[in-house]
Amino acid sequence: MEVVDQLADERIKAQFDVEEMKIVWAGSRHALEVSDRISRLVASDPAFRKDNRTMLGRKELFKNTLRKAAHAWKRIIELRLSEEEASRLRFYVDEPAFTDLHWGMFVPAIKGQGTEEQQQKWLPLAYKMQIIGCYAQTELGHGSNVQGLETTATFDPQTDEFIIHSPTLTSSKWWPGGLGKISTHAVVYARLITDRQDHGVHGFIVQLRSLDDHLPLPGITVGDIGMKFGNGAYNTMDNGVLRFDHVRVPRNQMLMRVSQVTREGKYMQSNVPRQLVYGTMVFVRQTIVADASCALSRAVCIATRYSAVRRQFGSQNGVETQVIDYKTQQARLFPLLASAYAFRFVGEWLKWLYTDVTQRLQANDFSTLPEAHACTAGLKSLTTSATADGIEECRKLCGGHGYLCSSGLPELFAVYVPACTYEGDNVVLLLQVARHLMKTVSQLGSGKKPVGTTSYMGRVEQLVQYRSNVQKAEHWLQPNVILEAFEARAASMSVACAENLSKFSNPEEGFQELSADLVEAAVAHCQLIVVSKFIEKLQQDIPGKGVRQQLAILCNVYALFLLHKHLGDFISTGCITPKQAALANDQLRSLYSQVRPNAILLVDAFNYTDHFLGSVLGRYDGNVYPKLYEEAWKDPLNDSVVPDGYHEYVLPMLKQQLRSARL
Amino acid sequence: MEVVDQLADERIKAQFDVEEMKIVWAGSRHALEVSDRISRLVASDPAFRKDNRTMLGRKELFKNTLRKAAHAWKRIIELRLSEEEASRLRFYVDEPAFTDLHWGMFVPAIKGQGTEEQQQKWLPLAYKMQIIGCYAQTELGHGSNVQGLETTATFDPQTDEFIIHSPTLTSSKWWPGGLGKISTHAVVYARLITDRQDHGVHGFIVQLRSLDDHLPLPGITVGDIGMKFGNGAYNTMDNGVLRFDHVRVPRNQMLMRVSQVTREGKYMQSNVPRQLVYGTMVFVRQTIVADASCALSRAVCIATRYSAVRRQFGSQNGVETQVIDYKTQQARLFPLLASAYAFRFVGEWLKWLYTDVTQRLQANDFSTLPEAHACTAGLKSLTTSATADGIEECRKLCGGHGYLCSSGLPELFAVYVPACTYEGDNVVLLLQVARHLMKTVSQLGSGKKPVGTTSYMGRVEQLVQYRSNVQKAEHWLQPNVILEAFEARAASMSVACAENLSKFSNPEEGFQELSADLVEAAVAHCQLIVVSKFIEKLQQDIPGKGVRQQLAILCNVYALFLLHKHLGDFISTGCITPKQAALANDQLRSLYSQVRPNAILLVDAFNYTDHFLGSVLGRYDGNVYPKLYEEAWKDPLNDSVVPDGYHEYVLPMLKQQLRSARL
Repeated sequence: MEVVDQLADERIKAQFDVEEMKIVWAGSRHALEVSDRISRLVASDPAFRKDNRTMLGRKELFKNTLRKAAHAWKRIIELRLSEEEASRLRFYVDEPAFTDLHWGMFVPAIKGQGTEEQQQKWLPLAYKMQIIGCYAQTELGHGSNVQGLETTATFDPQTDEFIIHSPTLTSSKWWPGGLGKISTHAVVYARLITDRQDHGVHGFIVQLRSLDDHLPLPGITVGDIGMKFGNGAYNTMDNGVLRFDHVRVPRNQMLMRVSQVTREGKYMQSNVPRQLVYGTMVFVRQTIVADASCALSRAVCIATRYSAVRRQFGSQNGVETQVIDYKTQQARLFPLLASAYAFRFVGEWLKWLYTDVTQRLQANDFSTLPEAHACTAGLKSLTTSATADGIEECRKLCGGHGYLCSSGLPELFAVYVPACTYEGDNVVLLLQVARHLMKTVSQLGSGKKPVGTTSYMGRVEQLVQYRSNVQKAEHWLQPNVILEAFEARAASMSVACAENLSKFSNPEEGFQELSADLVEAAVAHCQLIVVSKFIEKLQQDIPGKGVRQQLAILCNVYALFLLHKHLGDFISTGCITPKQAALANDQLRSLYSQVRPNAILLVDAFNYTDHFLGSVLGRYDGNVYPKLYEEAWKDPLNDSVVPDGYHEYVLPMLKQQLRSARL
Repeated sequence: MEVVDQLADERIKAQFDVEEMKIVWAGSRHALEVSDRISRLVASDPAFRKDNRTMLGRKELFKNTLRKAAHAWKRIIELRLSEEEASRLRFYVDEPAFTDLHWGMFVPAIKGQGTEEQQQKWLPLAYKMQIIGCYAQTELGHGSNVQGLETTATFDPQTDEFIIHSPTLTSSKWWPGGLGKISTHAVVYARLITDRQDHGVHGFIVQLRSLDDHLPLPGITVGDIGMKFGNGAYNTMDNGVLRFDHVRVPRNQMLMRVSQVTREGKYMQSNVPRQLVYGTMVFVRQTIVADASCALSRAVCIATRYSAVRRQFGSQNGVETQVIDYKTQQARLFPLLASAYAFRFVGEWLKWLYTDVTQRLQANDFSTLPEAHACTAGLKSLTTSATADGIEECRKLCGGHGYLCSSGLPELFAVYVPACTYEGDNVVLLLQVARHLMKTVSQLGSGKKPVGTTSYMGRVEQLVQYRSNVQKAEHWLQPNVILEAFEARAASMSVACAENLSKFSNPEEGFQELSADLVEAAVAHCQLIVVSKFIEKLQQDIPGKGVRQQLAILCNVYALFLLHKHLGDFISTGCITPKQAALANDQLRSLYSQVRPNAILLVDAFNYTDHFLGSVLGRYDGNVYPKLYEEAWKDPLNDSVVPDGYHEYVLPMLKQQLRSARL
């Protein structure tokens, strides 16, 4: 077949250096080089083919994932890949697998919560995959509320062992990935009980399956929890159920870095600060924000390319208009494109924040921790919710064909949405942010200066009085104009909540009653963070022809889109007038026109291979229709012209012989 | 197992007569009786079991659907069910199948567009299912724009036949349900060409497959287009691809009610008004609105029941708080409950509108047609978008377990979302509404009085000046206060768009440029319709203790929730002040508290069987956790303790023998 590039005209139009933009997106020249090399490695290896995934039954699908995981590990060893490269390789294989939990949760749990001795014993086994581990926290009846877990670990001083037990049905471990069929070990979270005293939830390393025949050890009931959303999606993962019937583990398998149980059964705290666990949380949530920008950019890349290929209505000279030229399409698509970049940069900043927090913790400085914790919780919530909704919006932006699995979008959505629930339900997290905001407001009088992302609260008296002085649409292009409006809105909403709360005699009751408003105040605060970090990014040195200009356009699109979406907040707090809002809207339309010619290269800059995108609609060459047609015939239903079941069920119907048929 | 009702306490709390509410929901005592009887019939028949659906591979899944369709047809014949009962039975079987298109599109197309003679020939065959038909309109490259279809039907006067042909790849028929594997016939839409003249798109009855051996007839290429979103979902349907290579059909297979081709090849219009097709559109879209209320109410029923079962945090006396008691949960869930009722009533009203339009058409009165057409287009868009988003929100409201297929919600979402795209893309439809609104505004000066749902536009001068006089939260409970605010907002937004449009020298260019604003004006108009029809419903005689009161609460929840969501519209148009908005919000919170004790019975009133709901989380008895646990073990992965692939792929990894393994 001849080489086609249906999007060549689009690529000529663009006004910036896409190669330099790729570096900005990747984070550094080095990061781009690694990503590029590893993604091509995966794409060119037929063992990592994934286009048949949605047609497989559960067993085949799962076996296929085991094969890929083994192949990936083999390649990692053969090519002597670095940790960074290995992690990129697993990422580009793009299929949830037990290895995600082994590397992403089991190993970090031991590193973070195990003593030196425990690390020396367990980590080498885990690094070589001589054992495979998972992270068994969530229970059938207990998710968000970790303190409500029911599994018990009772110390038996007679044998120097813990007895791990599931006292109720709802205490069954439920959801842990890799648990159902593969893991040999787990870090199990259970209520520590010594001498009838409950010390709350602690982690224990528990072997689940024999290393010889893979059978569950005595007292352990374990299995898969069944099908989940989507065709392939997370069904490649063995999320599991696990019950313990008085299972004994040696005392030294309790993770003892922070607290210990002595040989005599005495419970003790070490001098390691408990706050360290928050450091881990900051780390994990930073990864989730980075993943959000990745998932959203994939969806946007598919929808943008297909919007340039697809034509509907508006026939001129017999050729219909490209869908991407419609303002309604732009008004839905370009804010998502801008959001993908915005989330990328705030994710980059969170990496810095994690380093900063870690260094401070090591110096016993806990002063920024509550703010950092609230900030990462809020950003996790904001970016994952926007990404889940954004992927589905991109699917709708592709019209009917977005509903086909070959578009890649249904799987992307189904595999992404759990991010809104795991590692903290998004609404629960926003309430945590709101608590922090209310605390910050209440401490303003006491002279305690708000830090980091809440430092604007120090100017709260000015901010609640703030009135924007925008008079022309172009004024909305000034970063300080945008920043002030977002600060004023966020501060005013927090202050209003605090005032309403103060009317309640019972503050906790007030917090419950006003929680929906508090969530909105938290969202306003988090959006301010994303906008301000995007603006800070633009103040850095950004080389490459036109690159900074394009990013400035996207930053403005992101901010003005939010302003329009949350207009009620901005106007009712008095920060801006309806007239100024209308000017912002005019400016936004004009920004869309500026994005339009650059749209294709702005998604090319993500540097995704066609293999990784996994979408006929998002193909780099835009050669959509012939490939859609080709893909259709691969469906198992097309194996035969007359389908299975025709003779038993359809023919008797057509021949009016149903009455006598046995179905 | 003993009988449990975990929700019994909830059911005692309620303050209204649920049996009477069931009648209101069903529409009449008769409708309730039929629904109740048929849904139990389906639920009690093991042949209609559907809990294993998500685990089947494509071929098995499809064969299973053929079996159910045949069994359903057999039961319909055996029990001599009426048309109403048969249609209810297909509905409660709850699995997309080729029969949906046969009864829902093929038969109505012949009835609506065929001549008396054609109806007499084809309908008896179709009624007995001696032929099975589908509706082949959409093409690979052409969806929304019907006028852009490429398939041709060229009249050959030599043989008195049409030659149906697919001239390009993009002209392949693509998407029609029932086409891929089953239909023997199709109504095919193609450009009619006589004597080299193109007369636009017309419908033709074309036989696709032999009635003897089911093989495609010469010149016809046909197959399934492949996997779609979700596990079961629409994969039970054979959406198809179809290409014609100069396929000949007799002249009398063109549907000739509105226009004809004579033996000589002359193209003629009959005296049947072309507007009749709009009547069909009103009918189809009215069905879609009814389906929306059904799909949304299912999701809401599941989420509401599980929110009462599920407990998290807030431990008191060792028992955690029911999730439904959290205001954040209420603020997300109860507006959806209210929306389900709102859509039900507006759907009921649309049924009346269809009858009204039909009677007028028969009397050659076309005066209300444009308004009725715009209104149904807008309501289709509004209700399907809200329902798709609402189902996903309900899934998230169930926490992690909503992600399991056994929750029923993933399938409900995947099977529902196409409604946002088919029968008119939701954004394209809103633009049609906006066009009608702009026309209405422009004709105000000419003395042409706006009719039906646009009649409030007749008071546009007062409405744009309107300032709400709400002073207390309770004032927001008055129907006229709500109605006026919604009318003022909608009218002001339309007028503002019209003014902005008038600044463009080229009106079409202006319409494109401002299309995002126009969409918002259309949404405001459509929300007003839903609110006003809910209020009208409350003015009817509604028997039963407390029934009217509950509906009034839900009506206020729906309206005030929208007001809060679109606060920017209401405040920036000046209809209400920020202070009044805050009062509305206070009132909304208090309404949530009033819904709370009645929530379970308000979803019981939908009268759904556990079979139809298909959700472990939504079980009537609330016995969720034991059943979730039980369901898990049914997954094929649990057939064996050690999974397929362990020996080939996992063992070599654990034993460090990967290097030598051949994968």
